[in-house]
Amino acid sequence: MEQQKPLNLIIDCDPGVDDAVALALAAAFRDRLRLLAITTVAGNQTLERVTANALNLSALLGLDVPVASGCAEPLVREKAPAADIHGPTGLGDCRLPESGRRPASDNAVLFLQNTILSLPPEEGVTLVPIGPLTNIALLLKAFPEVKPRISHICLMGGGINGGNRTAAAEFNIWADPEAAHMVFTAGIPLTMCGLDATMQGGLTRPQVEGLRTGGGKVSAYFGEMLDFYFRSLNYRNRDVVAIHDATTLLYLLYPDLFATAQLPVTVDCGEGLTRGMTLADRRSFLEDGGPRVTVLTDVKDPQRYQEILLDAMARLDQGA
Amino acid sequence: MEQQKPLNLIIDCDPGVDDAVALALAAAFRDRLRLLAITTVAGNQTLERVTANALNLSALLGLDVPVASGCAEPLVREKAPAADIHGPTGLGDCRLPESGRRPASDNAVLFLQNTILSLPPEEGVTLVPIGPLTNIALLLKAFPEVKPRISHICLMGGGINGGNRTAAAEFNIWADPEAAHMVFTAGIPLTMCGLDATMQGGLTRPQVEGLRTGGGKVSAYFGEMLDFYFRSLNYRNRDVVAIHDATTLLYLLYPDLFATAQLPVTVDCGEGLTRGMTLADRRSFLEDGGPRVTVLTDVKDPQRYQEILLDAMARLDQGA
Amino acid sequence: MEQQKPLNLIIDCDPGVDDAVALALAAAFRDRLRLLAITTVAGNQTLERVTANALNLSALLGLDVPVASGCAEPLVREKAPAADIHGPTGLGDCRLPESGRRPASDNAVLFLQNTILSLPPEEGVTLVPIGPLTNIALLLKAFPEVKPRISHICLMGGGINGGNRTAAAEFNIWADPEAAHMVFTAGIPLTMCGLDATMQGGLTRPQVEGLRTGGGKVSAYFGEMLDFYFRSLNYRNRDVVAIHDATTLLYLLYPDLFATAQLPVTVDCGEGLTRGMTLADRRSFLEDGGPRVTVLTDVKDPQRYQEILLDAMARLDQGA
Amino acid sequence: MEQQKPLNLIIDCDPGVDDAVALALAAAFRDRLRLLAITTVAGNQTLERVTANALNLSALLGLDVPVASGCAEPLVREKAPAADIHGPTGLGDCRLPESGRRPASDNAVLFLQNTILSLPPEEGVTLVPIGPLTNIALLLKAFPEVKPRISHICLMGGGINGGNRTAAAEFNIWADPEAAHMVFTAGIPLTMCGLDATMQGGLTRPQVEGLRTGGGKVSAYFGEMLDFYFRSLNYRNRDVVAIHDATTLLYLLYPDLFATAQLPVTVDCGEGLTRGMTLADRRSFLEDGGPRVTVLTDVKDPQRYQEILLDAMARLDQGA
Repeated sequence: MEQQKPLNLIIDCDPGVDDAVALALAAAFRDRLRLLAITTVAGNQTLERVTANALNLSALLGLDVPVASGCAEPLVREKAPAADIHGPTGLGDCRLPESGRRPASDNAVLFLQNTILSLPPEEGVTLVPIGPLTNIALLLKAFPEVKPRISHICLMGGGINGGNRTAAAEFNIWADPEAAHMVFTAGIPLTMCGLDATMQGGLTRPQVEGLRTGGGKVSAYFGEMLDFYFRSLNYRNRDVVAIHDATTLLYLLYPDLFATAQLPVTVDCGEGLTRGMTLADRRSFLEDGGPRVTVLTDVKDPQRYQEILLDAMARLDQGA
Repeated sequence: MEQQKPLNLIIDCDPGVDDAVALALAAAFRDRLRLLAITTVAGNQTLERVTANALNLSALLGLDVPVASGCAEPLVREKAPAADIHGPTGLGDCRLPESGRRPASDNAVLFLQNTILSLPPEEGVTLVPIGPLTNIALLLKAFPEVKPRISHICLMGGGINGGNRTAAAEFNIWADPEAAHMVFTAGIPLTMCGLDATMQGGLTRPQVEGLRTGGGKVSAYFGEMLDFYFRSLNYRNRDVVAIHDATTLLYLLYPDLFATAQLPVTVDCGEGLTRGMTLADRRSFLEDGGPRVTVLTDVKDPQRYQEILLDAMARLDQGA
Repeated sequence: MEQQKPLNLIIDCDPGVDDAVALALAAAFRDRLRLLAITTVAGNQTLERVTANALNLSALLGLDVPVASGCAEPLVREKAPAADIHGPTGLGDCRLPESGRRPASDNAVLFLQNTILSLPPEEGVTLVPIGPLTNIALLLKAFPEVKPRISHICLMGGGINGGNRTAAAEFNIWADPEAAHMVFTAGIPLTMCGLDATMQGGLTRPQVEGLRTGGGKVSAYFGEMLDFYFRSLNYRNRDVVAIHDATTLLYLLYPDLFATAQLPVTVDCGEGLTRGMTLADRRSFLEDGGPRVTVLTDVKDPQRYQEILLDAMARLDQGA
Repeated sequence: MEQQKPLNLIIDCDPGVDDAVALALAAAFRDRLRLLAITTVAGNQTLERVTANALNLSALLGLDVPVASGCAEPLVREKAPAADIHGPTGLGDCRLPESGRRPASDNAVLFLQNTILSLPPEEGVTLVPIGPLTNIALLLKAFPEVKPRISHICLMGGGINGGNRTAAAEFNIWADPEAAHMVFTAGIPLTMCGLDATMQGGLTRPQVEGLRTGGGKVSAYFGEMLDFYFRSLNYRNRDVVAIHDATTLLYLLYPDLFATAQLPVTVDCGEGLTRGMTLADRRSFLEDGGPRVTVLTDVKDPQRYQEILLDAMARLDQGA
């Protein structure tokens, strides 16, 4: 789907290795994506850590966009960072050059409202939340006037065949289920790039090794970050590392790469086994189960998925 | 507790008959309470209705303060107004004179932030939420910088011996349990004026009849509103009508009127029988159950409670 | 898997159209399956109705085994029959000849205990529960001494990709989640023939029509029963009718027909969205998630599934 | 309430210090209470431990009744003994003389059924469950034919003003909420001797010391057991030790000692904060909240409560 006009984009993230790759894609495809802002939220690491990462990544990638830091903890549940997955720096154990950049605001919610309302009303904006949905939920509830300006929410989170943080729940949704519930019921067209698709894409060990040692400066950092994943417990026995958050941008850029289904999806906010589950109603006889979510169900061409990622890295190395 | 200096006060309400009495107390005690703003939230009636009521009440009571309208629905749960209790207008079937007043803002959350931050930093403000806690929760989460400015949250809601909306839950908390959870865990000194106390105060049928027909203009409106309660299902067999929301202001003005306990209180956000319950941990052997809430457990002098209310009404009739 | 010796079998059922087909398979394969008893439980229809059906079916199929009636309602939850699916008689609207047979006992739990303990200790027994698990749960809890005698529980219920009664739960498990939880945690080898497999098997409209009008007496009754399914809401748009309960016997007889996975499975007994869900933990990196259940994930050869069913019917018509 | 004829009684228990006192009352009042059997259930300690205690206590107290051992674990939830409260032997650290008695049966559920059905049908039996309700729930579900023979269930458990095991739940109900739910909904007249009353009765430190050192053989053992309570964490700051389970027998013997209320009570089987809570619906305007439970709300004369207990001990010392 070649866009005539660049897509107005805001990425709400908690970098996070896979968030970093998503930002890299935004940089590599800047001709097709007009990134307006990056906002941060506690998730993969503490707010302080992920904000520093976002700033340093924006410098590394040449993204001249404001970064606003947002919520330091979820709405209702206790805070529970995923440092075991994303490492001491949140980018594995990779230490990026200190950019010296500072956040444009320490109130991402208000910053999002301002940014969205300052666009010409006839232009929509696509929100790409790839962390817990705390900021976005607060934005939509505290400033409902922004809703008509948001044409699409394309998020990484959930899944309809089980989770990763628990048997039932994916990390981003699990980390703030109430926020996710608010976003899923906000009445805005929503695409859920969940584990069903994100676990089918990804890079192989040789590909990650190629990035790490292949020569380019940007690639080298990303190879180092992704290599951390392979060294972690979860990937011990796997040959392909999933790069969950990047799937959102790949879907926006190359929707044909994915199979999708239109399903009613409910976020489980209960206290039981399935807290944070994105429960899809797949009963074929269902007449009406409420509003539908676009659920990514499959990566149709995993090899092309890899090529696009690697090609983007190569272009970033060349200072594109 | 005679205040040297008037207490900075913001009332967040959903009038509602008992909200109306709370506003009346604010007017009657304006020498001791400096009401900065009234904000509204959907609860007893729709947002539109309660905002209109707040505006008309402020005019009737001579309260020259801004009214800002807030959230039209709870954070997570479905909206469920209490029109069966509070009647078609939300003030029973009482129709107040149309004041022509308009809201100062249609974003109570932002208005609260501005109002609080515009006070001199050394002055605290007391929040008096007497409806569902949607606005206040969003305020505290979206603008955590206001927290140090809020010296006290004195709310009507909950109870430690059962509910009114369900066996376990009081209406205000039940109406938005997640919001209540956020407020109870915000780290701000909190007083819970719940059913334990509010059901012990109140006016008798003759007292309400006295207001309705006793001559004063303001009293007459309030007598009419309260009479609606007595005609409702819940008060069929009762001789005293509780005026829940007014208890917050009576506590601020006359704390000695009440017995209190310092207890850990958790708002139940589960989906079961006890959704919206304010669970207090009353186990005497408990070493540490987390932060304490000041829970009003008893009205020590119910007759004085009545006298203060009736005296306030009389003063309002005299244009005080 | 050709059995040397017939398998000792007890079927616990709530006929129910698909239960009827399971009983038909037991009759058609009596050389390989030694059916010891049929016990009944409220589920698809009331206990009275399903017990009458079991008695009449045993007569029609020439099954000379005792029938004991069991629990009339679930352990904890409210009773909720599925008459909308299984029709007024529980066998659609099919009325079988009245057999005049009487239950051997009206206490299936005690009858099961006696039957199991009266077998030579070195012989195991396979339980085939194809209704709600109320009887079996009570048996295992009230008479734990039977556990070592039960070599295998092969049940119809659950699923790992969503439900039919709700988005999350299959009917049999949903109907008595606490009972299911007790059975799943009893420490007995367990095979879950859930919707993942049962929705892949089944008969086509022409095949059902062939049974109904093809000449045989037994087939004609089954054709009539199954035709009711196709006339129901759930199968409006479908070309194949699933015969869930029969899958258990097909698995015992022809295990190679199915793909399976060994997974930890937890029955959700919470009160929320996912009550009655059989939550499988499919995380590949999981070291240990507790005891595994054999989950049928696919029918490898749906055509052979049909042929076996149709061939069994033909043999029953010939008085086999 | 002087009984003309002794009351047929079965005590289902998990001794447990306070269970021991209940058994002592049964022995001391054998002219008014006809104890038919003692059944045991895992709770305060393991099944093995509590059964040994029941046997040794029956010998010590001269109770010539069969003891049957029952369920070793709850129906659904994980086992969680209360050894921290009841000490290493379950009777504090008291070691009773080994009686050499053996259980009459190791299947209390079946034993209860037999015992109840063997009574003349016109005689009722009163069940006194003072442990988790596992046995009784299984009895009522597996053998519903006993229900008309049970005239009254008078249990220790629950409370309507908070718990002891958690903020919401009392230990016996918490230990097997699903079983409790089954018992509370069985349709049998039920009295709940919960914490509201049991925490108001009890013995003082000097009274316990008097038992321990006062001379009598039986008293000495009980004084030793109760002294353990005072040494435990929960009673550190208390002057009166509650003897929860004994309240059931005191109520049967001296109902006038207690204030009661007729309330709908629901056992919370959810997974949240309030699991195991006995939620009473105390809303005065409630027309119909379903079947009522007799809830003991107060001990009207705590001193008489003590005198009866001490007098019973004295009589047991005299070999009465």
